[in-house]
Amino acid sequence: MQGKYKALWLNNKGNLEVIDQTKLPFKYETKVLTTTQEVVDAIKDMTVRGAGVIGSVAAFGIYVASGEVKSYQELKQKAKLIRESRPTAVNLMWAVDKMMDLLKDSTNLVNDAKIYAIELNDNEAKESQKIAKFGADIIEDIMRKKNKQSINILTHCNAGWLAVIDEGTALAPIYEAQKLGIDVHVWVDETRPRNQGASLTAWELTQSKIKHTIIADNTGGHLMQIGDVDMVITGADRVSANGDVANKIGTYLKALAAKDNGIPFYVAIPASTFDFEIRDGMKEIPIELRSEDEVKYMRGVDKNGRIKEILITPESSPAINYGFDVTPARLITGIITNKGVCEANFDKIKEKFQSKK
Amino acid sequence: MQGKYKALWLNNKGNLEVIDQTKLPFKYETKVLTTTQEVVDAIKDMTVRGAGVIGSVAAFGIYVASGEVKSYQELKQKAKLIRESRPTAVNLMWAVDKMMDLLKDSTNLVNDAKIYAIELNDNEAKESQKIAKFGADIIEDIMRKKNKQSINILTHCNAGWLAVIDEGTALAPIYEAQKLGIDVHVWVDETRPRNQGASLTAWELTQSKIKHTIIADNTGGHLMQIGDVDMVITGADRVSANGDVANKIGTYLKALAAKDNGIPFYVAIPASTFDFEIRDGMKEIPIELRSEDEVKYMRGVDKNGRIKEILITPESSPAINYGFDVTPARLITGIITNKGVCEANFDKIKEKFQSKK
Repeated sequence: MQGKYKALWLNNKGNLEVIDQTKLPFKYETKVLTTTQEVVDAIKDMTVRGAGVIGSVAAFGIYVASGEVKSYQELKQKAKLIRESRPTAVNLMWAVDKMMDLLKDSTNLVNDAKIYAIELNDNEAKESQKIAKFGADIIEDIMRKKNKQSINILTHCNAGWLAVIDEGTALAPIYEAQKLGIDVHVWVDETRPRNQGASLTAWELTQSKIKHTIIADNTGGHLMQIGDVDMVITGADRVSANGDVANKIGTYLKALAAKDNGIPFYVAIPASTFDFEIRDGMKEIPIELRSEDEVKYMRGVDKNGRIKEILITPESSPAINYGFDVTPARLITGIITNKGVCEANFDKIKEKFQSKK
Repeated sequence: MQGKYKALWLNNKGNLEVIDQTKLPFKYETKVLTTTQEVVDAIKDMTVRGAGVIGSVAAFGIYVASGEVKSYQELKQKAKLIRESRPTAVNLMWAVDKMMDLLKDSTNLVNDAKIYAIELNDNEAKESQKIAKFGADIIEDIMRKKNKQSINILTHCNAGWLAVIDEGTALAPIYEAQKLGIDVHVWVDETRPRNQGASLTAWELTQSKIKHTIIADNTGGHLMQIGDVDMVITGADRVSANGDVANKIGTYLKALAAKDNGIPFYVAIPASTFDFEIRDGMKEIPIELRSEDEVKYMRGVDKNGRIKEILITPESSPAINYGFDVTPARLITGIITNKGVCEANFDKIKEKFQSKK
């Protein structure tokens, strides 16, 4: 299984190949993306998802597009299509702009695009490795302080290698801990309504043979009360200058429970996730409202192994589907980044990150 | 639709008829229970569920059984079968014991069993009505203090008339508010893993034309942060003498969020739910561990209207399924009972309820 620990790669024919994440965890299938349109569609229909992975696919997408054009001007048209495939994905725009900037004086678009895309991808991987190491230090520290030989970590949603090259954000320290021989067990919030935990995180951890247990999102509080959670690590979609964290809906509830039970709550992100334009995350971060169908319908496999969608509510009952919530900085023990670990407060974040951005 | 607002009734042939709750919200079907074995099976397979409803079905079950026997001694055998159909249901045992006690000197078992079962059922209904009225007073009070013309109430799991005769516990004040002409809207936690909110509560509210919106269990915290929740009302399975509340898993997380946002959090119960044997609920209330399959599989209807079960996780990933959690008394604004409203603390509860139990 060539892509076992990678969400995308160049296959032996030199083509961009990705895991079809819409089929996980039920089927492992890959797609080869040979045209700009196929790249755009893969991003749009969520064949690939997760901030970092979308960015990498977009960078390789420019390489794919470069084979279809005769000039930089023509490539710009294609780049626009990729850039607009998901309008709110910051990493996608960043990756496309970065590639187009690097290529602007190129005399061999196909050759150079390939080199730059690989480079960008490798750089992302290196940053993920740094998050992994900073996070693993914290894991070891918590175990030392509690004098424990094993650790139980709770996570929400999916912030592993299916989301961010190379080992993800929230899961990167866990993969690193495994390499260090630490006995780690992960509580996986199923993460309704899209179930990224029960499907993607559980599948990733299964591939890596990391011990884990899936729980309903309702269960984490009880596990904390009975002492079965040693720390929480989640990813984030956006962190404001004052350390408020926008992440998958439900993160706030787990942060409250962690605080109530004296359990460390960490957020793992690339430093680029800080948004210094936003001073007060609670007031200013806009929350995406998604389709009610994600609440009302559920995907899975029937007993014949066929992927099915079923309605789980009365047909006429409305549902509402906020994609994210904002966890106030006061509930966050620390933010783990590729540039080190930081307290979640304005002065510390500004001092550590803004100058270096 | 004869049983529209009732979970069970005697039909026009004098037989016990119940709504088949395993089919809700997808199909409205009833079952006529004409033998002791059918009554036992209906309780075992959760055709009927909810503390109060199980108690009422058990009482009518004794009536059903009385037609199959020639003596009180024989009836005791049948009663034992009903009593053991769900071993942890306190109301079930109470109802069977009560019926058998009332019948011990009867010279016409069938006739008397029918009368006593109806009486027991009617008494339950009256107590539910009292909860409704005490709760509605609180709703009106909150609206007055906030100077609002409408109210948003969040609830977790199902504690309506599908669970407790006559209008439930948590939902009883909401039905009462509707009767009073109050503009009420209910946020319905879907309540994973068994989805009693998305299926039963949403269906009940639909029947009664009460405005409601289904949300993932992750969503309540965000709604509270943005000011869209005015109060929370849940039921409870057991309340300890110090006011700690055992209720459906996830209740604790909503109570934390309510506290964090200054939102009143009420628990509505029959006074019989207090367990004075338990002084410290957090330490002493045992938490039921249920099958992992309830987390891993989901029921719903496919596009052809057929009820299907699908697997929603990797097949090999384990899951854990605690049925309940305990919300500490410090997070609870008040306990609404058929005997009045009370603060959640040992002295107040003892003073108000223990003497009258």
